Amino acid sequence: MPADPTSVPPGSPRAQAPRLRKLLIVGVGLIGGSYALALRSAGCVDRIVGVGRSRPNLDAARRLGIVDAHAGVDDDWAAELADADLVLVATPVAQYPGLFARMAGKLGPRTIVTDAGSTKQDVIAAARATLGAAWPRFVPGHPIAGTEHSGAEAAFPTLFQDRNVVLTPVAETDDAATTMVAALWEMCGSRVRRLDAAAHDRIFAAVSHLPHLLAFALVDAFAARSDAEDIFRFAASGFRDFTRIAGSSPEMWRDITIANRAAVASELAAFRAQLDRIAAMVEAGDGNALADVFARARDARRQWEAQYRARAAVPADGPRDT
Amino acid sequence: MPADPTSVPPGSPRAQAPRLRKLLIVGVGLIGGSYALALRSAGCVDRIVGVGRSRPNLDAARRLGIVDAHAGVDDDWAAELADADLVLVATPVAQYPGLFARMAGKLGPRTIVTDAGSTKQDVIAAARATLGAAWPRFVPGHPIAGTEHSGAEAAFPTLFQDRNVVLTPVAETDDAATTMVAALWEMCGSRVRRLDAAAHDRIFAAVSHLPHLLAFALVDAFAARSDAEDIFRFAASGFRDFTRIAGSSPEMWRDITIANRAAVASELAAFRAQLDRIAAMVEAGDGNALADVFARARDARRQWEAQYRARAAVPADGPRDT
Repeated sequence: MPADPTSVPPGSPRAQAPRLRKLLIVGVGLIGGSYALALRSAGCVDRIVGVGRSRPNLDAARRLGIVDAHAGVDDDWAAELADADLVLVATPVAQYPGLFARMAGKLGPRTIVTDAGSTKQDVIAAARATLGAAWPRFVPGHPIAGTEHSGAEAAFPTLFQDRNVVLTPVAETDDAATTMVAALWEMCGSRVRRLDAAAHDRIFAAVSHLPHLLAFALVDAFAARSDAEDIFRFAASGFRDFTRIAGSSPEMWRDITIANRAAVASELAAFRAQLDRIAAMVEAGDGNALADVFARARDARRQWEAQYRARAAVPADGPRDT
Repeated sequence: MPADPTSVPPGSPRAQAPRLRKLLIVGVGLIGGSYALALRSAGCVDRIVGVGRSRPNLDAARRLGIVDAHAGVDDDWAAELADADLVLVATPVAQYPGLFARMAGKLGPRTIVTDAGSTKQDVIAAARATLGAAWPRFVPGHPIAGTEHSGAEAAFPTLFQDRNVVLTPVAETDDAATTMVAALWEMCGSRVRRLDAAAHDRIFAAVSHLPHLLAFALVDAFAARSDAEDIFRFAASGFRDFTRIAGSSPEMWRDITIANRAAVASELAAFRAQLDRIAAMVEAGDGNALADVFARARDARRQWEAQYRARAAVPADGPRDT
């Protein structure tokens, strides 16, 4: 594989593994819950407090040992912020501005804040506008992991193992805060990479947001057809894999699409232009041109698959993330 | 699940399991090879002769015990046809007319011919035009199974287990021939269903051909980008599943697309219209409309997944077919 300019060399030697006395997780879903379980399993956190909207989900998180205590997002949890070492925000991204505004002024003088949102420019803008004195200790992050399932009950401690986590700190971001957040992700088994936030949003619009939109679009269109019953009856595993991501959270994907809409719109336009070219080949019956497209795609896909397996250390039918 | 008008009730009682003294397989790839292995494993075939284009592939088929003897497609294998009980044609569909023309007049008076092509109206037209006296003993078929891998070495005996096989016999098709072909697929563990050929081609244009085209189109477009390296570096398992079918045979998919191009063009047009609607929502920042699309898709996908698992008896991460 070519040299990778985004990879982060192993950090400067640390005297010891990172340790959190208190971790606050806002949004105890698949991502927030798995982060808690991974850090617990690595033995680097003493106490975890969960904040969320859904009482049944918080109760499940408590029952599953994900959190030690919890509070509803509309309750008064500001008192939990002053002595927290780290706050992870892992809700759908549209909730960030309101959450940041509530947290500002209540965070301890050394509390680090990070997030797990799939878009970064909007998150950075919200944090810069609202976090006040804590803004330099906000480390924007995006773990490239997930499944189509949601909620604390879907969480598992190895979700981030061998996965990329992208951090997009800005000039004002405190280096020590970034180092701490990176070290914690490494304790989860992740590979930490850095990207500029705009590059992040452009790359993920293509490689993640566009495929999700296409999968949602296809299944929605099929479900509305008069022959939907036949379509679904004969759908097999090609369809199954292609549309797996259409089982993902509508709210999360609404927020991602809106937050990154300029880049998403640009990717959609480029893909529609590619489909126009392919439709013209189909209508002209141009088998050679189609075979060229298919062969280039096949070759690129196979090359990618080999690199992905080597990198992620997963078998052919290994765990799936998004 | 609702009553299924395409399902075939268990056949009239047979005195014994179907038995072939000699099976000829033209195209000993994933499908042809797996059919041979499945029927061997069921103990209902004595001798299997393979015909194909690639000598290394035929040698592999012999070495793997898939065939007992083989001949190159350009050799003289007409003599093998007279005493064959069944001929399965499992090459890319563009080769069918030439193969049928060579077989016509050489087939035994009781030899049944069937196929495994992913399109049916073009195959039926070719068989009707060229098979002569054997035409009523041609049973058009399509096993809804496969993987993204090709060739005899990718074959395995359980490929068709719990999968649908669609037969599309026409008015002239001999009932006994259809019954025999259906019984053999049942010996492979498949569920046999009947469809009108036009309905078949319409349904599979939507549920299989369109997703393949979209996956090929996406990967081809990504590979051509100046930021391809970044795109592929951060692609994870959502992308992986979405594009798995882009690893499929370019030749096979060229032939399918061309053979079924009216239906494929119609599906592409419908999907581009759906993308236009979604692009308008993205550009307008209409999160509610997007969330509605995503929620309808998520619900339909989850309902389908539950039915698919029950039907195909596969676990959440079970074997994948196309």
